[in-house]
Amino acid sequence: MYLERISSPEDVRALPSSALPALCEEIRRAIIESSAAVGGHMGSNLAVVELAVALHRVFETPRDKIVFDVSHQTYAHKMLTGRAQAFLDPARYEDVSGFASPAESEHDLFAMGHTSTSVSLACGLVTARDLAGESYDVVAVIGDGSLSGGLAFEGLDNAAALGSGIIVVVNDNEWSIAPNHGGIYRNLAELRETGGRAECNVFRALGFDYRYLENGHDVAALEGALAELRGCDRPVVLHVHTQKGRGYAPALADPESWHHATPFDVESGLPAVPGASVDYARITGEYLLGRMADDPRLVAVSAATPYIMGFTPEMRERAGSHFVDVGIAEEHAVTYVTGLAHSGAHPVLGVYATFLQRAYDELWHDLCLNADVAPATILVFGASAYGTTDATHLGFFDIPMLGAMPGLTYLAPTCREEYLDMLSWALAYENGPVAIRVPVADVVSRPDFERPAGGYARGWEVVRQGCDVALLALGDLLPLGEKIADALAEHGVRATLVNPRLATTADEDLLGRLSAGHRVIVTLEDGILEGGFGERVARALACDDVHVRCYGLPRAFVDRYQPDELLASCGMTVEGVTADVLDLLGA
Amino acid sequence: MYLERISSPEDVRALPSSALPALCEEIRRAIIESSAAVGGHMGSNLAVVELAVALHRVFETPRDKIVFDVSHQTYAHKMLTGRAQAFLDPARYEDVSGFASPAESEHDLFAMGHTSTSVSLACGLVTARDLAGESYDVVAVIGDGSLSGGLAFEGLDNAAALGSGIIVVVNDNEWSIAPNHGGIYRNLAELRETGGRAECNVFRALGFDYRYLENGHDVAALEGALAELRGCDRPVVLHVHTQKGRGYAPALADPESWHHATPFDVESGLPAVPGASVDYARITGEYLLGRMADDPRLVAVSAATPYIMGFTPEMRERAGSHFVDVGIAEEHAVTYVTGLAHSGAHPVLGVYATFLQRAYDELWHDLCLNADVAPATILVFGASAYGTTDATHLGFFDIPMLGAMPGLTYLAPTCREEYLDMLSWALAYENGPVAIRVPVADVVSRPDFERPAGGYARGWEVVRQGCDVALLALGDLLPLGEKIADALAEHGVRATLVNPRLATTADEDLLGRLSAGHRVIVTLEDGILEGGFGERVARALACDDVHVRCYGLPRAFVDRYQPDELLASCGMTVEGVTADVLDLLGA
Repeated sequence: MYLERISSPEDVRALPSSALPALCEEIRRAIIESSAAVGGHMGSNLAVVELAVALHRVFETPRDKIVFDVSHQTYAHKMLTGRAQAFLDPARYEDVSGFASPAESEHDLFAMGHTSTSVSLACGLVTARDLAGESYDVVAVIGDGSLSGGLAFEGLDNAAALGSGIIVVVNDNEWSIAPNHGGIYRNLAELRETGGRAECNVFRALGFDYRYLENGHDVAALEGALAELRGCDRPVVLHVHTQKGRGYAPALADPESWHHATPFDVESGLPAVPGASVDYARITGEYLLGRMADDPRLVAVSAATPYIMGFTPEMRERAGSHFVDVGIAEEHAVTYVTGLAHSGAHPVLGVYATFLQRAYDELWHDLCLNADVAPATILVFGASAYGTTDATHLGFFDIPMLGAMPGLTYLAPTCREEYLDMLSWALAYENGPVAIRVPVADVVSRPDFERPAGGYARGWEVVRQGCDVALLALGDLLPLGEKIADALAEHGVRATLVNPRLATTADEDLLGRLSAGHRVIVTLEDGILEGGFGERVARALACDDVHVRCYGLPRAFVDRYQPDELLASCGMTVEGVTADVLDLLGA
Repeated sequence: MYLERISSPEDVRALPSSALPALCEEIRRAIIESSAAVGGHMGSNLAVVELAVALHRVFETPRDKIVFDVSHQTYAHKMLTGRAQAFLDPARYEDVSGFASPAESEHDLFAMGHTSTSVSLACGLVTARDLAGESYDVVAVIGDGSLSGGLAFEGLDNAAALGSGIIVVVNDNEWSIAPNHGGIYRNLAELRETGGRAECNVFRALGFDYRYLENGHDVAALEGALAELRGCDRPVVLHVHTQKGRGYAPALADPESWHHATPFDVESGLPAVPGASVDYARITGEYLLGRMADDPRLVAVSAATPYIMGFTPEMRERAGSHFVDVGIAEEHAVTYVTGLAHSGAHPVLGVYATFLQRAYDELWHDLCLNADVAPATILVFGASAYGTTDATHLGFFDIPMLGAMPGLTYLAPTCREEYLDMLSWALAYENGPVAIRVPVADVVSRPDFERPAGGYARGWEVVRQGCDVALLALGDLLPLGEKIADALAEHGVRATLVNPRLATTADEDLLGRLSAGHRVIVTLEDGILEGGFGERVARALACDDVHVRCYGLPRAFVDRYQPDELLASCGMTVEGVTADVLDLLGA
């Protein structure tokens, strides 16, 4: 086996060319086996095996600099830079992260997991190199849907203007997470169909030299094409055609589902553990599809992640023009939704919290500034410590972000029925945009749920009335609040339990009554403390004679953590909060 | 005079073609006269006079929809849609805002002032139109530098994919605020030079039909070109060459200075009121230019607003490769700076607070996530109620934004000496990125200023020691804090005055001592309360027996306000705070 003997890129360069196809097959097998065991970005990584080998044959990292966009497709790169055992030895599968990590290797330049950043990072490396009078190569590897992100364009635009040597490898596997959308992908298709000779060429138009390589799995051809670019003193694009899921039949047959796989059986391609029969994605998709039948103005919008809102390919087909995937373009998605709402449509944008960060200014300047003329609904997914646990994709920074948006109502439902009722209410609400923090935890049901008389624009819900301490437990932490209330009752402490419903707005009337009737107020939120829900409460009561204790998550890039452990480290356990409350009450 | 008789676009359409050149001259004269009196976006508006007339001759707003990008170039449009008197009658110059405003007119679709949003908004209008089975035209007018913004690309990319009728008018005046930067502008130049026939064409590459019009000041030709596009059922770009500052010699001679003009004398072009001889822009530019002589790694970076950091064309010339203007591309600017810092450069990015919102995710995911490998400095300008007072450009939402960034140090200097010392300290600080909230108020000097022994990473400064109340006055509100302390002294109340230096981090040791030694803590910040500095203090002390009163600005789109009045409406006056404190002390 070649792969076992590779401890650095030098070993890759020392191999005879004849060994490379076998090496690639070993890498591919390791991707499949390790992903089957612990999950992974199958499709994207299988597409770039030969490209990664060729890059390390031609360029000498870390002296030369290679920036892999998104960096979810760096498994082969990791294997070639001293981390092969983490993909070969099942006991070490968890040794490395799924993304580039400077902490792991000097060959990984940046921690990253959001798309479209590689060319801009590479531009910075280029300017720094030129200022220092050095002469190494800088390579950005971008593709897999990232080119539709505006930042990628800004980077390409500036790279062309800098005019210095930079190599942009466009890894064109014909897919985003879902099928590609956008004019630039039409141009890539034209270029593929003409062997790179189409007159229309967005890269040449921006000022790049351009090369095309049809077979992105011919490692010798890749090596040759890259070798020609060594030491180039101009911006150049090498457009490489690859196949998402290459070498694994189930992934080739269904690239969308196999973009990222949870653990699976290699033989059958079936999940090792069946998915939940019901989750909030499915609940969302079924509800919206049902509503589309009655509401010709309803439009569901996604930025390349239709599955998070339950829209499978079959459901998208059924939704027809009422479902729009704008591709990886979160900024555009929010501004587009503003335009939709302006003309009387009812847009619902579903987006991960971590990717909504891309559209901070569009939320502020487009959607919220135009709240009077353009109300819309945003479903925020994965906003929880129980969402993605990679530092690159943390979803629990959403409350300070959305809390700064004038006129935005940010709702935090606590169960299935409340979620759907809030969504229904939001679709009819005309006084400003509404965002909903879709629960991440297991689906909780409250069959007796009823809409509050005044709707959701203001007003919290008292779930249980007590008198010693008031527990304000936001969203999917309500069950934790209930358990704490029960535990306190065993100590003779009567707790009031509140479902605040609103993540960023204080119910000042209720807070006034709680402050007057309780000695301690506790806030519990599944989000960072800084700028969060708890601070809003602390300020509102800061001149009252009541003690307020806020529980929340750290403003930190915690990585590959255990959610329960993270909450426990912040004191958010039944035992921890109960003990603190007893202490504060002097009981 | 034609203009006086135009009360709606119908009146424009009723004019004989022969009257249009005279109408355009009247509009141009009104732009110059009104801008001379109250200031305005001179260059951009003078460039689009004929275009605005032609648009309203061909399209029938509000049935047809026209979205003007940035909307700072809508003066002619406003005059043609019932608001001419606001440009003709000096007594009414302040009647209309400098940007599109749905509150003013049904012909203004969206409130907007940031760049690059028009195509995305128009895409939303297009989808809503098509869903409703209607057939009006949708036109986005973009240019004046906005094409380099990633959002514009995302919009164009998606417009091409939607495939429906949309008209994008590219107003190519060859400028951003400063000279254009980027590959796309190279392509526009190529297209201009070839009369639109260059083989490389970024718009065709994305899938647009494309037309070129060389003389963007020939109103009849414009009308003819636009008329051909009426009712189009495909995405089409009309590329129009215009001249920034057309019709006013000083603006033609120096487009950068005349992008926006403060009140001036029409005859001479000289400012009506001389600018301050010293301000923070100039202080910044002179300091950085001086440092560049000694520090070959220092790079100043701007996203199309070099003047805010004092870099005049002459100073940019002197800085050479140590000054990089990336064009209107804030996202790229932050990620580029991350790349620069990675390779050992010392990048300093200067950016308006309101535009830094564009780069929220790049701050989080690129700069802060890579703090270990890529420290950098960001200078945040206009972060104050005393910055721009248009709702579209409010700068005082910065503290919650930057307060959510893990590991970022956000400093708020109180005087010239402290600012420069913080900047010097930041350039040498290797433990993470540093942002500095550059003061907006008049330059204050403290000649006896000395750097604190521990630097600025932690620790607030006690400026005056008292015992009854502690006033924490952030950044440029320190002078207000001093006055309040003096006023309280007259009532026998001894106030401690604190310069917190850090806008987003609590000095918990000091807060503990303040809490123990004072009955009331007051926070004063020139920023919104929600997620701000005061809430950090309120939470830190929420279990102490001390009262905390937070003063700050509203989370609202206040528009064209008087800063002193806004602060007063929030209780932030010497009298207001003094009375509140006396009340809280029961004095």
